[in-house]
This record gives sequence, structure tokens and C-alpha cells, in this order.
Amino acid sequence: MSVYLDWAATAVPDPDIIKASCECAIQHFGNPSSVHQAGQEASAVLEECRARCAKSLGVKKEEVYFTSGGTESNNIVLLSHLQRPSRGTVLVSAIEHPAVLEPAAVLADSGYKVQYLKPAPDGIIRKDALIKALTPDTKLVAIMAVNNETGAVQPVAELAHAVQEYAAQCGHKIHFHCDAVQGTGKVQLDFADPAIHSFSISSHKIRGPRGVGILILKNTIQPMVRGGGQEGGIRPGTENTAAIYGMTLALEKALADLDKNSAHAYHLMDTLLIKLAQNNSYQVIPENRNPGDKNYSPYILSLAAVPIPAEVLARTLDDKGICVGTGSACSNRKKGQSKTLAAMGVADNVSFSRIRVSTGSTTTEEEIEQFLKTLDQESSILLKTLR
Amino acid sequence: MSVYLDWAATAVPDPDIIKASCECAIQHFGNPSSVHQAGQEASAVLEECRARCAKSLGVKKEEVYFTSGGTESNNIVLLSHLQRPSRGTVLVSAIEHPAVLEPAAVLADSGYKVQYLKPAPDGIIRKDALIKALTPDTKLVAIMAVNNETGAVQPVAELAHAVQEYAAQCGHKIHFHCDAVQGTGKVQLDFADPAIHSFSISSHKIRGPRGVGILILKNTIQPMVRGGGQEGGIRPGTENTAAIYGMTLALEKALADLDKNSAHAYHLMDTLLIKLAQNNSYQVIPENRNPGDKNYSPYILSLAAVPIPAEVLARTLDDKGICVGTGSACSNRKKGQSKTLAAMGVADNVSFSRIRVSTGSTTTEEEIEQFLKTLDQESSILLKTLR
Repeated sequence: MSVYLDWAATAVPDPDIIKASCECAIQHFGNPSSVHQAGQEASAVLEECRARCAKSLGVKKEEVYFTSGGTESNNIVLLSHLQRPSRGTVLVSAIEHPAVLEPAAVLADSGYKVQYLKPAPDGIIRKDALIKALTPDTKLVAIMAVNNETGAVQPVAELAHAVQEYAAQCGHKIHFHCDAVQGTGKVQLDFADPAIHSFSISSHKIRGPRGVGILILKNTIQPMVRGGGQEGGIRPGTENTAAIYGMTLALEKALADLDKNSAHAYHLMDTLLIKLAQNNSYQVIPENRNPGDKNYSPYILSLAAVPIPAEVLARTLDDKGICVGTGSACSNRKKGQSKTLAAMGVADNVSFSRIRVSTGSTTTEEEIEQFLKTLDQESSILLKTLR
Repeated sequence: MSVYLDWAATAVPDPDIIKASCECAIQHFGNPSSVHQAGQEASAVLEECRARCAKSLGVKKEEVYFTSGGTESNNIVLLSHLQRPSRGTVLVSAIEHPAVLEPAAVLADSGYKVQYLKPAPDGIIRKDALIKALTPDTKLVAIMAVNNETGAVQPVAELAHAVQEYAAQCGHKIHFHCDAVQGTGKVQLDFADPAIHSFSISSHKIRGPRGVGILILKNTIQPMVRGGGQEGGIRPGTENTAAIYGMTLALEKALADLDKNSAHAYHLMDTLLIKLAQNNSYQVIPENRNPGDKNYSPYILSLAAVPIPAEVLARTLDDKGICVGTGSACSNRKKGQSKTLAAMGVADNVSFSRIRVSTGSTTTEEEIEQFLKTLDQESSILLKTLR
């Protein structure tokens, strides 16, 4: 049996949820926009899902928009700024996922000034640095809830409130967006916080179906992608009722079990951190990350066994049946160093050797033991070869 | 048992395909961008699907991009024109789906001149009219394969070749896009036609899963929506492997059974047209549509029983267990007349009374008989009340 430790790339789906979604696809197949009974049934499922997601998230159901996933949710918010009559500055953290960094680059091409806010060496964005970067023409700030590479939990509430204070002083509006793809159902987040105007959520990161997500949106924006006017015009295209239903189940479960799962994840993470610290071949990233540290998601850990290249170590572990990541899965097939680690000031050779271990609710202690044992064996062989 | 005659809004999904997609979601859950075994397995499924879709469609596998559906496929092509250094004219047929008309309006807002090409009264775009509308600054022409309201089959090959001849004479390029959402698997289409640079396809219109589609794209374009670089950067976001697998099965089946299903659909449509012609309360749209007419998809029929409002007739039929459409499902919940019928010159009172009957491969003769019987009964009661 293989050991899957790449939950941050995609979670092991919950088979019961996938089956329930499948049954929904067959039973409630109508187009929710159709006015006949088949359509009304589908529409009822859709609106029940919206109400249930809203309740789980603690937001209004009018603030829940169903999308095709985290990338689309992020793009809807960022690209909506192309429609604004005037340009200005967009402030994004330098450690955002490509789903934020890339549309930010589109804004840069269209005349926006895009500033990249660096985290401290611990991977966490500081309020002072953010305040310093704000300018009277700042239109949008985007900071993620949990970094997908280091697990660093960003103080988004504190940061967002600082932005809103600044905006109030300046007398203009600044949209604060939070990519919560790695945070939702994993760490405590206040989705109702009025200082945060939008959140992106992905279903497949919380054991739900692929190809579906949520954009929590509290104000009106002008979307770029247009069509039949579904989801209040924010996300056109026939609503994916069955996937939305599966996501609703996954979200409810993830949020209800958050504390229980988190305690389990901390237990596993602490085991990892304690054991890794016993062998000076390993370096966790950031180095100051300690067991029990609440500033990091207990589900995600970056580590390096310098000078073993991450790809070599990951492949070797894979040969032994252990799946780990080598950063953001999205950029794995593209060459180049991690922007997140570079922004933290991590040395290139450490970054080059970095693998990512990420766990989920069904990860067992035995799997962590097997990973550690195999890592020790394989890295010692590789280190002998390389040194 | 209810009679579902709104397949153009969404098809009755094939339960075997939905179940196969569900199994794929559980079995091949890895992120196709991950380099480990779970990722490689998912990537292998994805690339096998791409090859199989390409083979079924008769195009190169490099030309197949998986998207979240027809709306997104259309938007990718249209909105890519926002990234072009200079503006120009965009020519779209006036009978396009909102998934083309709405992004065209975005282009208009950004400085493009958008021209709407009217069909003849029979709902079909004429080559002469198209040629007359072409200008040296035309950058994009978008004409659908099959109209979603009337079933009118557009002569896209003929039109596209006329455009390419004109472009060659002018010495510049014109992108020809075809929304093939209602045509794929329903009428014969040459997806390999070099004069047509892109096609949009939707899975849920051909009995596959919701939330997935194809963009056939033969040249490179600059997408607006950006992220992790999946699908060659054309459509970012974790690939929806399971839905793509389901769509592949649906597409193969639809294309393999096209002739057989089409013969069955013509048989049902001819029954409809012959019976409707026997009662002068009914008017088919366009009026000159005859049994066996190859200029119309055998799956879609617009008809009116003036002066019964379409919504009243549809609701009455719905009460008797018969689901029909009242136009494009996408615009059902928005008020206003059909743009397609208006462009054809259909009188407002006829348009106001228009319902849409659309069938699929499992529609039976008995269902058509039941529809006709119920329509006769209910419309005669309503007509007595209204006249």
C-alpha cells in the first residue's frame, strides 16, 4: 500500500461523498435555470447547497457563489479590476499561489502597478510591512490564508483590519481578497469578517469532487467571463449541481471536524518535527518552526535534505511507495525555483532540495512512521552518493 | 412518469457514464501535475482521454483543451482578444448563445467594434451577408454550429472558408470560432476543418458529466484567466480528471452513434412536424421548416400556440408531467424576448408564445405522442380561455 502525503496538491476524496455526488448527478440532472419540474428540483438542490455552505461558513447565502474551483474564484476577483474605470496599485503577497500571481500579472500588463509584499523569513506577512506598502491609490490587496508550500498561517484578519483602517482614513475603498484554498476546513477562519471582501475555496482540497469551488463575495464586482447570467452573473455556465452537492457535504464535514482533525494533524506534525530534528541531515523550512507552533498549518511541512535535489528524493520515495510533493503541484512540471521560498530568503540550495509533506484527516501515525523510516534510509544512501 | 423534452438545456445523463466517472474520481484521484505515482496515474488518464477525444473528433490531441464547459470555452477565445495589441472588428452572429454574445459585449466595451450578423428569416446565416459584413479590420468571426432555440444548422464550413478566402486576399488573419455545443454528436461537423480555428463543446449536452467541456484550438492565443499553467496555460486549475473521463466516454458514444441517433431523432421530429401541421393553432419557427429538412437539427424545435404565453403553456405542460423549454434555459429566469427570434424577424407575439421541444437519444415515440396529445388538450383549453 502506498503512503499518500501530498494532500495539499489534492486530498484523497471521500468515497461516500463522491458516490453521493454521483447519485445527485443522475437524480437531479435538470438545468437549474429551467423553469419546469426537473429544473426546479435541481434549482432546489442548488439553493439548499448554497444555504448549507453559507451556514457552515457563517456567511450570508447571497455571498456564496459557486465556481469551477480555486483558480477561477481568484481570477474572478482579480480580473474584475480590469473593468474598473481607473487603474491604481494592486498589492499581493509574494507567496501567493500562481492562481493569484498570474492574474495579478495580467493586471500589471493592463496598467496597474503590482507590488509584491514579502513575508518575514518565517514565511509570515507582517502588518507593519503591509501598512508601509499601502498607498492612496491601492485598489486591491490579496493575501492567502495558509501558504501552500510552508503551511504558514497568515494573520489575514489583522492584516485586513489594518487595510480597512487605512482605507477609511484615505476615504476610499480597498478590496481585500483572501485565497483560502489551503486554509478552509484546516485552520480557524472568520469568513464573516467584514474587513475581508472575498475568499476563494476549493472542493478537492477538502475531500470533495474536483472542478468545483466557492467564491465568497460580499460586494458587487464586474466579472470578466460572461454568459447566461448564472450565479448572479458572477460565474456563468450551467451550474454543476452534483459537484456542488458533493462539495457541500465535504465542506460541512471538514468544518464540523476541524478541531478533531486539527488535533490529529498536530499530533502527526509534531511527530514529524521531533523526529526530523533528531537528524541533522534535515532542515525544516522555515528553520524556526517548532512542534505545536500555531503559526503553521499542521497539515503542511516543507523540508530539505541538502544537497539531495527535491526531485531525486521525491522520486526515490515514490519508488518506495511514498507520495510527497516538490512544491506547488501546479508548478511542478514547470522548471524554476519556488517564489515563496525565494521571498522568504531561503538559500537556493535549500530551496532546490525542498520536498513538501502534506497530510489529511485519514493520514495515520503508521504512515508517518513509514515515511520517516524510508526517508532516513533513502536519504542516507543518497547523501553518501552525493557527498 | 414525466416526459423530458428539454435536452437542449441539459441532456439526461447516461448513468453508466456518471458511475464510471465516479469510479475514476475515487481510483485516479491524484493531481495530474504531481510527479509521483498517484499524479502520474491521473496524468495518464488525462492524456489518454485527450487522445481518445482527439481521435473521436478527428483532430490532433494537441488541439484538445479541457475546460469547465461551453461557456468557458467560448469566453477563452473571445476574451483572448482583449490581450491583442490593437483593436478591430468582431463579427458575431446575432443568434449566438449568451456565452458568445456576452463576452462579445466585453470586447465592445474595450474598444472593439462588434457587429451582429443577422440570419435570414429561416434562422440561417447566409454567406453573402457574411462576406458583405467583413472589413479589413475584422479580427474574429464567431458563428455557432447549431442554434439552441431553432435548431438551425449553420453552414459553418462554407462561411469559414469564405472568411479565410477574404482574409487571404487582405493578407491578414481572421480567427473563426464555432460554438459547437448544440452540434457536437448531433449533426455532422468537420472539427479538423482548417478554416475553423476553434470549437466549443459541452459534456452535459451529450449525456456526460456537468462542469466539463472542450475547447478545440488550433493556434496559440493569450488566455485571460491565469494560474498554475495547466492545459498549456489555456485553462488553468487542477484538471478535473474524472469528469474529463466521463466526457470522453460520452463523446465517443455520441459520435459513434451519431447516424443511428440522428435517424431516430428525424423520425420523432417528422412525427412532430406532421402532427403539428394538422392543427392550425400551432406555428413552427421558422414557418417553412418541413419534415426531413436537413437545415435543422432533428433534436430541436421551436413552436408557438399564439396567443398562449410560452410560460403559461410550459407550466401547464409541466403540471401534466411534460418538461419543455421556453428558449435558452440560461435566459429563462431573465425577462425579455429572444434575440434569436428577433433577429429572424419573428413577430413579437409569436416569440412571446414560443416553447422549445428538444429530444435526445433515449426519447421515445410514446413520449412524443404523449406530448402531442397533452399539447392538443391543454392548448385547446387555454385558447378557449384566451380568445
